[in-house]
Amino acid sequence: MIRVGIVGGTGYTGVELLRLLAQHPHVEIIAITSRKEAGLDVCELFPSLRGRLSLKFSEPADAQLEKCDVVFFATPHGVAMEQARALLSAGVKVIDLAADFRLRDPAEFERWYKTPHTCVDLLAEAVYGLPEVNREAIRSARLIGLPGCYPTSVQLGLLPVLEHGGLIDTASLIADCKSGVSGAGRKAELSMLLAEAGDSVKAYSVPGHRHLPEITQGLKAIAAMAGKAQGANDLKIAFVPHLMPMIRGIHSTLYARVLGHAQEFDFQKLYEQRFAAEPFVDVLPAGAHPETRSVRGSNFMRIAVHRPPETDLLVILVVEDNLVKGASGQGVQVLNIMFGLPETAGLTQLPVLP
Amino acid sequence: MIRVGIVGGTGYTGVELLRLLAQHPHVEIIAITSRKEAGLDVCELFPSLRGRLSLKFSEPADAQLEKCDVVFFATPHGVAMEQARALLSAGVKVIDLAADFRLRDPAEFERWYKTPHTCVDLLAEAVYGLPEVNREAIRSARLIGLPGCYPTSVQLGLLPVLEHGGLIDTASLIADCKSGVSGAGRKAELSMLLAEAGDSVKAYSVPGHRHLPEITQGLKAIAAMAGKAQGANDLKIAFVPHLMPMIRGIHSTLYARVLGHAQEFDFQKLYEQRFAAEPFVDVLPAGAHPETRSVRGSNFMRIAVHRPPETDLLVILVVEDNLVKGASGQGVQVLNIMFGLPETAGLTQLPVLP
Amino acid sequence: MIRVGIVGGTGYTGVELLRLLAQHPHVEIIAITSRKEAGLDVCELFPSLRGRLSLKFSEPADAQLEKCDVVFFATPHGVAMEQARALLSAGVKVIDLAADFRLRDPAEFERWYKTPHTCVDLLAEAVYGLPEVNREAIRSARLIGLPGCYPTSVQLGLLPVLEHGGLIDTASLIADCKSGVSGAGRKAELSMLLAEAGDSVKAYSVPGHRHLPEITQGLKAIAAMAGKAQGANDLKIAFVPHLMPMIRGIHSTLYARVLGHAQEFDFQKLYEQRFAAEPFVDVLPAGAHPETRSVRGSNFMRIAVHRPPETDLLVILVVEDNLVKGASGQGVQVLNIMFGLPETAGLTQLPVLP
Amino acid sequence: MIRVGIVGGTGYTGVELLRLLAQHPHVEIIAITSRKEAGLDVCELFPSLRGRLSLKFSEPADAQLEKCDVVFFATPHGVAMEQARALLSAGVKVIDLAADFRLRDPAEFERWYKTPHTCVDLLAEAVYGLPEVNREAIRSARLIGLPGCYPTSVQLGLLPVLEHGGLIDTASLIADCKSGVSGAGRKAELSMLLAEAGDSVKAYSVPGHRHLPEITQGLKAIAAMAGKAQGANDLKIAFVPHLMPMIRGIHSTLYARVLGHAQEFDFQKLYEQRFAAEPFVDVLPAGAHPETRSVRGSNFMRIAVHRPPETDLLVILVVEDNLVKGASGQGVQVLNIMFGLPETAGLTQLPVLP
Repeated sequence: MIRVGIVGGTGYTGVELLRLLAQHPHVEIIAITSRKEAGLDVCELFPSLRGRLSLKFSEPADAQLEKCDVVFFATPHGVAMEQARALLSAGVKVIDLAADFRLRDPAEFERWYKTPHTCVDLLAEAVYGLPEVNREAIRSARLIGLPGCYPTSVQLGLLPVLEHGGLIDTASLIADCKSGVSGAGRKAELSMLLAEAGDSVKAYSVPGHRHLPEITQGLKAIAAMAGKAQGANDLKIAFVPHLMPMIRGIHSTLYARVLGHAQEFDFQKLYEQRFAAEPFVDVLPAGAHPETRSVRGSNFMRIAVHRPPETDLLVILVVEDNLVKGASGQGVQVLNIMFGLPETAGLTQLPVLP
Repeated sequence: MIRVGIVGGTGYTGVELLRLLAQHPHVEIIAITSRKEAGLDVCELFPSLRGRLSLKFSEPADAQLEKCDVVFFATPHGVAMEQARALLSAGVKVIDLAADFRLRDPAEFERWYKTPHTCVDLLAEAVYGLPEVNREAIRSARLIGLPGCYPTSVQLGLLPVLEHGGLIDTASLIADCKSGVSGAGRKAELSMLLAEAGDSVKAYSVPGHRHLPEITQGLKAIAAMAGKAQGANDLKIAFVPHLMPMIRGIHSTLYARVLGHAQEFDFQKLYEQRFAAEPFVDVLPAGAHPETRSVRGSNFMRIAVHRPPETDLLVILVVEDNLVKGASGQGVQVLNIMFGLPETAGLTQLPVLP
Repeated sequence: MIRVGIVGGTGYTGVELLRLLAQHPHVEIIAITSRKEAGLDVCELFPSLRGRLSLKFSEPADAQLEKCDVVFFATPHGVAMEQARALLSAGVKVIDLAADFRLRDPAEFERWYKTPHTCVDLLAEAVYGLPEVNREAIRSARLIGLPGCYPTSVQLGLLPVLEHGGLIDTASLIADCKSGVSGAGRKAELSMLLAEAGDSVKAYSVPGHRHLPEITQGLKAIAAMAGKAQGANDLKIAFVPHLMPMIRGIHSTLYARVLGHAQEFDFQKLYEQRFAAEPFVDVLPAGAHPETRSVRGSNFMRIAVHRPPETDLLVILVVEDNLVKGASGQGVQVLNIMFGLPETAGLTQLPVLP
Repeated sequence: MIRVGIVGGTGYTGVELLRLLAQHPHVEIIAITSRKEAGLDVCELFPSLRGRLSLKFSEPADAQLEKCDVVFFATPHGVAMEQARALLSAGVKVIDLAADFRLRDPAEFERWYKTPHTCVDLLAEAVYGLPEVNREAIRSARLIGLPGCYPTSVQLGLLPVLEHGGLIDTASLIADCKSGVSGAGRKAELSMLLAEAGDSVKAYSVPGHRHLPEITQGLKAIAAMAGKAQGANDLKIAFVPHLMPMIRGIHSTLYARVLGHAQEFDFQKLYEQRFAAEPFVDVLPAGAHPETRSVRGSNFMRIAVHRPPETDLLVILVVEDNLVKGASGQGVQVLNIMFGLPETAGLTQLPVLP
């Protein structure tokens, strides 16, 4: 059994991690820490776990996380970069669900998160935990920066065309993304009240969202790894997130200009082939429209590829559960890879529909 | 492996049954029939099952259901009573999720369902599939009438006080029940549109709902089985169902008058003891208020017991997922009992929260 | 034009008051105060008012509220009782939307609100602002304690039977109430997040809710005013509030035992006659089930009266918009009465459906 | 008083029209016809209108619509083109809320609506009822084809830049639109059930939606009317509609490439100036993000203009209530213009928020 510790864990990615790990056949949850909730039974905070999980929040100092095989950080940004070094030194692997080890450039981190990065050397070592892109690097990694929810959907949605190269204008990409409110976390914020966010839709952060530099970095890396230097250098994307009156789910609608010579290219086939061996990425038949509920509660991502009539656009529709493939499920998938377990271990739940 | 067939299965209890059975370690789905959808891949109708289930709807005539160990009817009422006899004769067990084998009195069936019962002899043999009440009878049953969603919550909510006897006035019970819209089934009904049922609440069927005779019959049977003849004879309950602007979940608020001499009785302890050994009934600590989302997608039922100040009332709060413990999950639980499997096999999913 | 001031007004009853008053033909909003938002354009906080309202929040000290004809307190409890005296002395009428002037007994106030009442003499003078009960007293009042949202629905729902007397057992009343989340106010509370309260239902405060003493006081007063001393003395009600996954609306389901001799009484006719002249209380035809959305955004209350089969129960279904008839609309109705305006002035909006 | 008749009116645009007209100071509703509901009190179908509207559905033959000043068609497409001629001959003006008189080219109509246009001569006369574009033509029109809900938001969102000309690449426009379910009408459709469309998001009709030719025609007309022939000829737009889990509201996110020389152009000022005199189009301050709820139940449209960082894109955010400015409210606005009434008559309702 892999011995797992969780730092934080009172938020939505935390409870989702607990839900998944509690059903994982090869994992044992050793400790979950929370300064604020130390001593509290986890099931008192999350009654959904009653009867299947026996665990109390503990003081970080008492948790003996160094005895774990791997520790997840389900904390706000800034925590993992303070504690990762000690854990790694003790031989513990680290998976950060927050933003500390996502951006490779510490200056970019400081620009977007308004605090200096305090662990720059480890940043260089950290692997970006997107299995469909970095599976090999993840296998041998000690330290993982897990992708954000929006970036997961945008990167995987564009992965096949970027890797192939020469198909689309990478300088004029658009990601019009729609997210449920759980993406904002379990925080008492006025704008996330049911009376505020319910029965309404709005865009937000159009002038700049923290996931934009991560998306750009990731897309450029994909193009560069595939040897498409030009696609990487020119790459530019507009990212417009929208808040949906629903709890879970992200629907990303991606727009790319198809280059003149590629107008007849078979994008459907490209996508089907690229993801054929991926256990969690499902390319829908031509003409289909994925619904976010078709992945609710599961680690699946579903993608459909369209060419709207009389335009030169490729439109890619991507759905994921922001708390599973967009966060905790991807974390478990990464854990499975790191420890040589079957990649779907603990992730065989089917989506809850309706 | 238990060989399972499903008749019908294009509705919500059908897709839920597929979700649960596809993850069941001891079950193999042999066939699912639908006249209307014959030939269609199940995953085309329910994309949530893509990647985990390979199955087509088949013509009833082609399905060879007689080769199954057990057949579920996830059909409208009236179908199971036509087909059960042939299956039983072939040695196949039958679990009906509809109403054909719930009411013991064929006249009551005809009164509420406006059609004569065509299988009265089997009705006498049928076992009411509520494990917490009828576990032993289920073990050896060939034919199961599975309880309705509302009746499951009302009966289990009142089970401890009725079995104990002498605690409450059984002649003045009230069940104020709140259900999500999936209880109405996957049917194109105007009143169930999001634009009609969303962001609104209403009572319905106050003058008479089909689940009322089932509830009354079940409560009387519980009292009678426990030797509380008086409680059974006098028993009367008002059942007022309400439609909630949500998808899944039932919240039943049950009101019972506590008899004078029982005012100091420890109801909390009674409930905890009665359900201590039940794998799916969870009695919350005193003072708690269960939320429907705390059981979403799982076979759990959660119950809290209250005595509102300055009244002689016992108030019992019961939540369940109407499609799981209120239908398909209970069906799988019954299957497990019938075939000597661990009762929780295939039902270990944790609730999806948030 | 009646000159109106508003104290507070950054919450939901505040914005609703602004919506209604901005459309009122005989009213001018002079000032709205908020310490926290002083200087801010009201439309910046509530963009829904853009283009129809030109008003800034002002410091309480600068607002010159004593120049108003009437001042609304749309504040948390505790504010109106500090400021009412000065306003009344200046000849300004006061309508408090909070709880300061609802409970007649200062000890009860302190028991439920955990703070002593600091304005006991004015409490004696205050009129409970429920027009259907207290219209005459409201006409000449200087100081109004406006009813809570739940109490409005429960009192009007039981008004005809209590006034008539001798029809029901007043010692065993039950109010099973369902409210949208806006009733909790515009406060950043974890439990009111869309990700927490959405797609779920729960009861809350079963051991005791602040509206219980107000309901009991009001029902007793109704019975006593009608000369039904016995009904008043014995009166007891259980109040079980539930939180609904919707924004606006209250659905109260009221249960009363019909006395033996009154089993054949025509309750439908009683309700129709009692409310025939009331501009905002609509008794539905026999057999109907009101929906909360049928009053959304309007000052209407709709009531249906049922006798469930084979029980001795009277079941009364009441719907209102908690922010209109349950708060700000009722405030405007009271203002109209106080100033001799047509009672429906500014309240002619039709419900928004769907 | 303007004498108004309504044909159809059992759908959502019908009930919304009734809500608005019942509050209109210069209008009298003479008749509403429905074959299916003839004889039924309108308030029985729509209880939200109880107490403010006394009207029965009548047989079309009995309705004497020729005595009206104006008749609205709130019917499926195909009805108005059959009946408009007789009404116009009788001197009655006609406003069609459906699609019969929107597309100028009968072949386009047949292509998208799968039925030949039967009233081609009147089509030539019909005026497209978008006041902000066609106010003068509307003033003297006899026959109005009212814009669709999506086209209203897309055309007004792009109006200032198209009229100005030379600012954006009109050949690569994108409209990513999000609509509540009421846009699908009051029809018993499986995909619009709360259990299907609730708590989920999906794109639909990406390969082709009936509003696409209307949008293209409208945008080209705007550019052409402003003398921007090139913008008109090249104009191409991708239209990707999405279904939102909410009842009312459209949020259109429009993307346009800003031409090289116009990178520093002040779009905020352009939009503010263009709509300064428009009573129902509200341009938000720079940096704002409009919410659909900020227009709920009102005829307002709100627009925000953005330039996302490091791109050459202009992003325009547009919100409207699809049943008001997107349908019935716009119909009333057009009626006001046709009959020389104040343009805001009957349309002074403030949005219902929360």
